Amino acid sequence: MCSTVAKDLDRPYSTQLNKTMTSTPKKRVLILGPIESTLPAYQKFLKEFEVIDYRATSRTQLITDLQEGGPLHGSIHAIYAAWAGLTKVGELDSELLDHFPTQELRIVTVCSAGFSPHWDLKKLRSLDVDFCNTPTFGAAQVADLALSFVLDGFRKLVVLDKITRRIGNTYTVREDLAFNLRWDRESGQYVKKIADGEDGENEVDFAFGHDLGGVNLITPQGKFAVILGFGSIGKLVGLRLNAIGMNVRYVKRTKLIKEEEEKLGYKAEYFSELKDAVKNASVVVLCLPGTVDTFRIINEQIIDLFNHTILVNVGRGSLIDEKAVLNGLRKGKISHFGADVYPEEPHINPELRQREDVTFTPHVGSSTEENDNATAKFCLENITDVLLHGKAAKNVQN
Amino acid sequence: MCSTVAKDLDRPYSTQLNKTMTSTPKKRVLILGPIESTLPAYQKFLKEFEVIDYRATSRTQLITDLQEGGPLHGSIHAIYAAWAGLTKVGELDSELLDHFPTQELRIVTVCSAGFSPHWDLKKLRSLDVDFCNTPTFGAAQVADLALSFVLDGFRKLVVLDKITRRIGNTYTVREDLAFNLRWDRESGQYVKKIADGEDGENEVDFAFGHDLGGVNLITPQGKFAVILGFGSIGKLVGLRLNAIGMNVRYVKRTKLIKEEEEKLGYKAEYFSELKDAVKNASVVVLCLPGTVDTFRIINEQIIDLFNHTILVNVGRGSLIDEKAVLNGLRKGKISHFGADVYPEEPHINPELRQREDVTFTPHVGSSTEENDNATAKFCLENITDVLLHGKAAKNVQN
Repeated sequence: MCSTVAKDLDRPYSTQLNKTMTSTPKKRVLILGPIESTLPAYQKFLKEFEVIDYRATSRTQLITDLQEGGPLHGSIHAIYAAWAGLTKVGELDSELLDHFPTQELRIVTVCSAGFSPHWDLKKLRSLDVDFCNTPTFGAAQVADLALSFVLDGFRKLVVLDKITRRIGNTYTVREDLAFNLRWDRESGQYVKKIADGEDGENEVDFAFGHDLGGVNLITPQGKFAVILGFGSIGKLVGLRLNAIGMNVRYVKRTKLIKEEEEKLGYKAEYFSELKDAVKNASVVVLCLPGTVDTFRIINEQIIDLFNHTILVNVGRGSLIDEKAVLNGLRKGKISHFGADVYPEEPHINPELRQREDVTFTPHVGSSTEENDNATAKFCLENITDVLLHGKAAKNVQN
Repeated sequence: MCSTVAKDLDRPYSTQLNKTMTSTPKKRVLILGPIESTLPAYQKFLKEFEVIDYRATSRTQLITDLQEGGPLHGSIHAIYAAWAGLTKVGELDSELLDHFPTQELRIVTVCSAGFSPHWDLKKLRSLDVDFCNTPTFGAAQVADLALSFVLDGFRKLVVLDKITRRIGNTYTVREDLAFNLRWDRESGQYVKKIADGEDGENEVDFAFGHDLGGVNLITPQGKFAVILGFGSIGKLVGLRLNAIGMNVRYVKRTKLIKEEEEKLGYKAEYFSELKDAVKNASVVVLCLPGTVDTFRIINEQIIDLFNHTILVNVGRGSLIDEKAVLNGLRKGKISHFGADVYPEEPHINPELRQREDVTFTPHVGSSTEENDNATAKFCLENITDVLLHGKAAKNVQN
């Protein structure tokens, strides 16, 4: 990344531009951070613009700061909102936009692929302001996390780490799991089968390690995985599941055309109906966006077709009916649930949190340094292109 | 699997065999279990042989039971030792073999690919007994576990699950990790940066989720992974790491020939020297067997060449110098250590167990139901072939 940016800096045009910059007032850009200050693209940006590096603490404070006498008062030519630079501000709605000095504003960028349906893009359009998000840079990262959840569902890394760390003896861990503990589906926990001191059986048997409280670990090879939502993320999930030997099924409104299927690099079977795809499936991965159409697409009727299935949600919390998922775990329809997103986000259901057949991450599907930097760089360059180079904005949303 | 066995049962030869069986005394097989009694291959076996399903509790008891008046006394034509049917017995050495009635013994099978170098295979050979292990059925399973460790090293699934489960709020988890906690390399733990109640900064900033106590999560794409030991397991590890976008390097005494490289299905760069391969590598996966040559192959000198490298050991505990690994974690040479095997196995180093940059499994690399069944089936069929069908034993070791 560094070398790419260094190359940019060396461009003759950039040099020429810097000369011009000294004689004209710099355009003013509001950065709703945080932004990684050491990022080369940002260091370059600081030379080209008057940057107001602002951290919004509340909607009221932001509005106050935008008023006369406030630190943000005056012309603003561009707004850069970091991944969640607007989190403390609420929606970028009509009311808030009224407080911005929009006469000079040309472009608003947000460092995310998704954005709130409540933001007033129409108003921005009518003011001749380009609203731009970013492409999905994080697809591979989300797919990596989905794979991590799938493997955890098969091999129970999180559970095994916890017990192994506590006991500190590989034999005893395996024996404990096989002979002393019982998997209790109702509570979603490994419970003691025999009282302490009664573990006579321990002396006799040896555990291979595949038996976890009466439920055997199985292998993904040759089993079926359903990917729901087969866009940039879903396709990369398929690539990963294919590499661990799974047969990939995808559900989509329309079948991929032959060229698209060949580009996948692996065989994927098309299903138009989710209910058909989930039959005999060992894994179901949700990669859909959260829309009216996908709301609770994983519900009781679908889960009833599951059979000891690993469910992974790296899409949106709204895709699942959480009560149905809980019941599915209790009935053994779902053998493991890996969740990065939640229906009541940021809150996570306390009943789920008690269960050892659920693995949680805090909505970090695409959260890596590379992705953070890539989105920042894209937005900064988008602003530069529009304000300084007279180019059309990229990724404009209406 | 079931259908394969059912087909075996339907073979005309089998039927013919059963007829013969009724008129001659069945041969006697000692099963040093456990064995999965519902396994179709075992059900078939029970009809063909006089089976002594025995669980060894100690060497002394086994020897006693083999003596006159003991339940095991008499001719034994074959010994089936489950994955660790000999664990409580110690080595299958000359002394123990003296107690077995070896005059009728034809074959000893163990349900593992590896076996102790202290077993007296020479003596068995001199007695005209075939000692047979199994092929590596579990290569894909071991590779799956290695991949799971690698992904955990990059994305910290185990750590994130623990914190997310405790806090129950996705925003707060990310904020906590980014602003309130500090990664302490020395102790290997996330420690509080600021006192409770002083988290004013929490009100201001939003965390993307890539910053874990000052150390950023990064993505495997485009980075280098070294696979040490490039046999059946290592090759499948490479396939998996290639699927998550990594550049695969392999270390081996001799380079694969062109046909072997093409068969891999992915590009792998050959290194004859480990010290060259680990330079700039983000991941090092150990898949070697434990031999004199591989003893502590990962030592201080090699680890000094690491730089924030994820180390994964799914080979043998003896491959690493544990003190050097601990120091490597403390110095940041190793960013994460995933371990399924341990130098002092079954014991796990208590200092390592305190660390959150280490993930543990209890030597379960190949421990799945499918592998357990496949090894059992292979051994049972091997015994049947030798004792009943006059075939040569498979996988004989000398």
